[in-house]
Amino acid sequence: MDISKLADQLAFLMEADRLKNLYRQTYTSTDDLPPMPEGSSVSEPYPRRENDAEHSFSLALFTAVLAEYSNEPIDVLKTIKTVLIHDIVEIDAGDTYCYDSAGNSTKAEREKAAADRLFALLPSEQEKEFRGLWEDFEAGETPEAKFAAAMDKIQPLLLNLHRNGLSWKEHGIRFGQVEKRAAGISGGSEVLYSHIFKKLLEARDSGILPD
Amino acid sequence: MDISKLADQLAFLMEADRLKNLYRQTYTSTDDLPPMPEGSSVSEPYPRRENDAEHSFSLALFTAVLAEYSNEPIDVLKTIKTVLIHDIVEIDAGDTYCYDSAGNSTKAEREKAAADRLFALLPSEQEKEFRGLWEDFEAGETPEAKFAAAMDKIQPLLLNLHRNGLSWKEHGIRFGQVEKRAAGISGGSEVLYSHIFKKLLEARDSGILPD
Repeated sequence: MDISKLADQLAFLMEADRLKNLYRQTYTSTDDLPPMPEGSSVSEPYPRRENDAEHSFSLALFTAVLAEYSNEPIDVLKTIKTVLIHDIVEIDAGDTYCYDSAGNSTKAEREKAAADRLFALLPSEQEKEFRGLWEDFEAGETPEAKFAAAMDKIQPLLLNLHRNGLSWKEHGIRFGQVEKRAAGISGGSEVLYSHIFKKLLEARDSGILPD
Repeated sequence: MDISKLADQLAFLMEADRLKNLYRQTYTSTDDLPPMPEGSSVSEPYPRRENDAEHSFSLALFTAVLAEYSNEPIDVLKTIKTVLIHDIVEIDAGDTYCYDSAGNSTKAEREKAAADRLFALLPSEQEKEFRGLWEDFEAGETPEAKFAAAMDKIQPLLLNLHRNGLSWKEHGIRFGQVEKRAAGISGGSEVLYSHIFKKLLEARDSGILPD
């Protein structure tokens, strides 16, 4: 039994826990909240944004439920592993809002440095596996990477539509910008792209997304 | 293209999003928090508890990284699907703290009713698959269910140890109670049980967990 290997894996998992502290722009689906645990000092103002751990949870469940709509056959386990770690570099590099072009110009460099540090916490075989999944995701060429990217794009769109465009409104986002971003879904799933495109047209026509 | 099937799947996924509103007793690993997104109205007091979506995210990543320590060979994808939905019944039934014996006496009944409603949102084939995974998890007899249960038990223990027993202290939990609960890990992984048992002994000896 290689104890130092296990210690390395647990160190990586504890570091990944910090995804729970990285908040995104997208709001969770609903404001309803059961009573907080007794004695809790936490009071969360609602609506609240989701964090990277919650987002990654959603993408994993989306992948498990929607895999049949992939354009190409995919290895579902590989795709789920990909979405679980696809944002891990944000622990060091921070979240860059998809419509922030200045932030996006330095994103690649910051994220590569983060990947160097974070995946190296794992034993070498797993470092290679998970770093490879992340690089594949960034390159966007394998069927799994394309489907993972489709999940990454469709999930916040669905949450935003469910919220009547709350986070789009805050940032003054218009239909054309969302349409452009949604187009990336078609590389992973034409079916899901077609579905969301109809929903976005409805949002435009009802004034949720200004033209 | 069966559009109503997709609508059902998306309705299930949007419902599952409510796991983000269900807070557990366990605290996240760390207090450090990057600056909130500009214009954010969210201010979270720290330390804060993790929610079911974050917990399920962690269990999925734990499974992906630690599967090699399972006592028996497991289907990793099946195990990850299990942990992703293992707490979904809490959307209706609420979270029951593992050391709350009154709450635990009515837990099974409340959770069955929740499973009836929630899994029925899915198309029938997936309803059968995910309901089956949840029932297998509850029964705890398959290798996947045993390993999922081990993940479900070891993850909060590791967070609590990382936090010097913060949530144990709040509830006056003693070494014997934690030891009993930790014993469930051995059914899924003797290696991980042996590791955590040593850590719990250290916590007892250093006074983090009163004897």
